[in-house]
Amino acid sequence: MKAMVLSSGGVDSTTALAMAVDKFGAQEVTTISIFYGQKHSRELESARKIAKFYGVDHIEFDLSQIFKQSNSSLLTHSTDSIDHRSYSEQLQTQSRVSTNVPFRNGVMLAVAASIADSHDEDQIELYIGAHADDAAGNAYADCSKEFIDAFGKSIEVATYGKVKLIAPFVGKNKSEVVKIGLKLKVPYELTWSCYESGETPCGKCATCIDRQRAFEINGVKDPAL
Amino acid sequence: MKAMVLSSGGVDSTTALAMAVDKFGAQEVTTISIFYGQKHSRELESARKIAKFYGVDHIEFDLSQIFKQSNSSLLTHSTDSIDHRSYSEQLQTQSRVSTNVPFRNGVMLAVAASIADSHDEDQIELYIGAHADDAAGNAYADCSKEFIDAFGKSIEVATYGKVKLIAPFVGKNKSEVVKIGLKLKVPYELTWSCYESGETPCGKCATCIDRQRAFEINGVKDPAL
Repeated sequence: MKAMVLSSGGVDSTTALAMAVDKFGAQEVTTISIFYGQKHSRELESARKIAKFYGVDHIEFDLSQIFKQSNSSLLTHSTDSIDHRSYSEQLQTQSRVSTNVPFRNGVMLAVAASIADSHDEDQIELYIGAHADDAAGNAYADCSKEFIDAFGKSIEVATYGKVKLIAPFVGKNKSEVVKIGLKLKVPYELTWSCYESGETPCGKCATCIDRQRAFEINGVKDPAL
Repeated sequence: MKAMVLSSGGVDSTTALAMAVDKFGAQEVTTISIFYGQKHSRELESARKIAKFYGVDHIEFDLSQIFKQSNSSLLTHSTDSIDHRSYSEQLQTQSRVSTNVPFRNGVMLAVAASIADSHDEDQIELYIGAHADDAAGNAYADCSKEFIDAFGKSIEVATYGKVKLIAPFVGKNKSEVVKIGLKLKVPYELTWSCYESGETPCGKCATCIDRQRAFEINGVKDPAL
């Protein structure tokens, strides 16, 4: 294994996966997906299909016990429904977006780094699809460059330089991610972004809106709709 | 809750717990212990007894699935036995000590930070007992100041400043930790450090030797022996 990719089954991480496969070849890449209690566990089905499409090894962990005490609206046990206002609208009246999940990227990256570090390799690249639109206005602070830099440093130190965190989209917005993915022929029809648990994307939640816009800017119809 | 303490049931984290209780009072402190597959799961019994002694809330998680792919000699499924040579001797012939567990502190801190961040408080201090002797010679890189600084920064950013990582012993050796603990009347007779799974400490493994020396320097007999 030369690369491990944190795969949510969505647009960004699938594009990161395409980059890793393009660089190392499918036989050297493993995807890892985490069930943390998300309502949209359908994204995990997408992650499985995408791993199959690329022919990469795929592992899954159920870490939902850790997030049981959070009332994030993204979690199945939450009493809150998903807020359909944009992140910037939400942040005018509250300190965090309702879909913020406590230290989610921290937990997922820590688990992935541990597993990567368990492998008998000299160097392993750990990919995450965090991008600038998610970090904008501090909607998801654990997608920010500041977070990625600090966490990447902690991984580098604790794995004796073996595992390197790669966040190729930290300075890019979602339409730029899609642009890269279209070139790499990413099977976006297999991805899932919607926060709701319906059979088809709701088209109304913040991530549905962001996604549609990203494809529109590239002059392409979202193939998952 | 004003403080969460990562408790292994050993000397260092129990001293950190005593500091947190001294600062905030027992009713504001929670201890968290992780089963990661360690042979010496007896330390978790000690952590429970110590939480009871102080009257603090105590939570436990089983994350052993994450570490299943590691061959660290500290883990129950490992085919390697615990190396009884000192860390510096081990590091003369190998790049890591045999008891290194991949990104262990990273995983445990990430989980603790997530849980702390789930609580409805403005500020929570997250304590870890990492100290200079464990980091010496890079035996445990995830106890180093470099690691703690980077990880602490990632927690601060992703929790919007709510959770603050406190590692009071990063610049101190184990005898200095014991000195602080003796002043705070830490019940060291309840702690467990030995890496082996025996009924009594083996007295031979690296952590048994470090512990004995720390008490000797303070002119005190180790009350757990």
